[in-house]
Amino acid sequence: MELQESAFGFEIDRVVEAIEERDCEKVGLQFPQGLKRRATTVVDTLEERTDARLYVSGDPCYGACDLDEWLMRNTDMLVHFGHSPIKDSDDVLYVESRSDAPIRDVTLDAAEKLDADAPVCLVTTAQHSHVFEEARDILEDDGFEVVASGGGNRLNNTGQVLGCNYTSVVPDAPQVLYLGGGDFHPVGLAMDHPDKLLVVADPVNDQVREVDGEKFIRQRYAEISRAREADPDKWGVILSTKIGQRREEIAQYLLDNYDDTYLITMDEITPDRLLHFDADAYVNTACPRITTDDGPRYDDPVLTRVEFEIAVGERDWDDLSFDTFHGAWST
Amino acid sequence: MELQESAFGFEIDRVVEAIEERDCEKVGLQFPQGLKRRATTVVDTLEERTDARLYVSGDPCYGACDLDEWLMRNTDMLVHFGHSPIKDSDDVLYVESRSDAPIRDVTLDAAEKLDADAPVCLVTTAQHSHVFEEARDILEDDGFEVVASGGGNRLNNTGQVLGCNYTSVVPDAPQVLYLGGGDFHPVGLAMDHPDKLLVVADPVNDQVREVDGEKFIRQRYAEISRAREADPDKWGVILSTKIGQRREEIAQYLLDNYDDTYLITMDEITPDRLLHFDADAYVNTACPRITTDDGPRYDDPVLTRVEFEIAVGERDWDDLSFDTFHGAWST
Repeated sequence: MELQESAFGFEIDRVVEAIEERDCEKVGLQFPQGLKRRATTVVDTLEERTDARLYVSGDPCYGACDLDEWLMRNTDMLVHFGHSPIKDSDDVLYVESRSDAPIRDVTLDAAEKLDADAPVCLVTTAQHSHVFEEARDILEDDGFEVVASGGGNRLNNTGQVLGCNYTSVVPDAPQVLYLGGGDFHPVGLAMDHPDKLLVVADPVNDQVREVDGEKFIRQRYAEISRAREADPDKWGVILSTKIGQRREEIAQYLLDNYDDTYLITMDEITPDRLLHFDADAYVNTACPRITTDDGPRYDDPVLTRVEFEIAVGERDWDDLSFDTFHGAWST
Repeated sequence: MELQESAFGFEIDRVVEAIEERDCEKVGLQFPQGLKRRATTVVDTLEERTDARLYVSGDPCYGACDLDEWLMRNTDMLVHFGHSPIKDSDDVLYVESRSDAPIRDVTLDAAEKLDADAPVCLVTTAQHSHVFEEARDILEDDGFEVVASGGGNRLNNTGQVLGCNYTSVVPDAPQVLYLGGGDFHPVGLAMDHPDKLLVVADPVNDQVREVDGEKFIRQRYAEISRAREADPDKWGVILSTKIGQRREEIAQYLLDNYDDTYLITMDEITPDRLLHFDADAYVNTACPRITTDDGPRYDDPVLTRVEFEIAVGERDWDDLSFDTFHGAWST
């Protein structure tokens, strides 16, 4: 069966070349949830063109922070589809899925919501990074001053955003144009930069909108208040076993400095898994988006480290900020 | 805080001794779901008596087949509570939780449902293995011929049953007395030995009952029929990444002999995780109880290897049998 090219394209030739070059017998394939339906077609194509045994990861995958370590250990190469590298590794071949959706009209529509007299910071995701410069040119031709930063700090490209890292937003810019789909990054941008005007240009759905981060900030205040009122005797400190979500130094710090803390290691973090423990509240040192986006679905309060410090009275409410990841793993 | 002793007791002294003997800095603690609520109390006790840093596994744990490999690699010793070893390892200390529920009355009550003129095979779980000989004596004093086997084949003790292994049932015995709680083992016993009279003596709830396996067998027929009618183009072959549920030779055999098969590796296997793939049916080579107990909750049919071979016409319906594990892992 031929690989059907759709709105998101994979570079299959590059995968075949890497399998041949490395003489791989076993190859792992990992897809984010939204691309898993294409796994069987990718397997068919690779089986036609190579002799490798193909192992598809069936576990959830939420980003390049979430590499299938079992496949890394047990195959000759892991092909990770849909995300750009947080950190390069010889064991992992990253294959971004690039959107071929046109960007010109949606970018110009979005520009009408911006202040033409102020600099605009342009950000995007791995799916659209290959058209970042095209988008910048469109805005500059339209008369805007475009600013951009990024790369380093887990980020592969200029202007790229990750769910845990919005450092590519230039601090001085009063407004941000996000080129990409979904709600996930607009929400993250709004939480990390609640003081900026945020406009979304979504090329896949051809939609433009403004995003207000206020309600997410209010939700975090509510969660901290819930934890204060509960006055927990036992705090579970969650340490992720996922390679790119493992912040052991923060977990250790909390364990060393607070008596009522218990270290809980987890791969997937879900509300039902925490129900089994008798802790009264949790500090999540793994992916901050679990805390901010899913936290209110948990029976007990789940806070970030800074939110915990506010809850126990070590910090002021004014210190509330979005929890971000800046480093990568060392092994 | 003192460890509260309840119906299930842990041998904390043995854990403390092992931590001291091995001079452990980091110790992993793993509990089955039903015992996770006691984790914080065990941590408190061990922190009072040792200097080790304690890591509690927050991932689900379904048996001694399901060791937390991340903790095995990243701590100096893993203490696995609640199950007896499938295979001994220097890296793992197994601490069974022993029930102190009295067994005499419930065993004699159950005996009234048995045929006094035929041999009875006695089986139990790790929670009651320490009173196995006491139960045997009670039955023999009551006039029964008691037969027993087991040990080896993943089984730690004579007469012990696992969810995937009921080989301790003596083939010639027409009746089985199961000493233990829950529905899980009665269901497995009934599926593996549908021709035997099966009586449950549950010491924890002080209950006696007969179990009929017929409905479980009918359910498997229905699942195979569902798969035949769907006539799948694509079969997902599920390979577990859990240390004691990884039957790679069966998965490889299926991949090598059937074209329409795709290898999917998974840790936790759940209905929602399979929804992301476009396979039409699945062969589960991991824990057989996922197939038999949870299979009907899956959108697509999930079969065991033998059930798959019946579905594709390679075997007769008469070959239908309960899928069992007889070996342990080699690494």
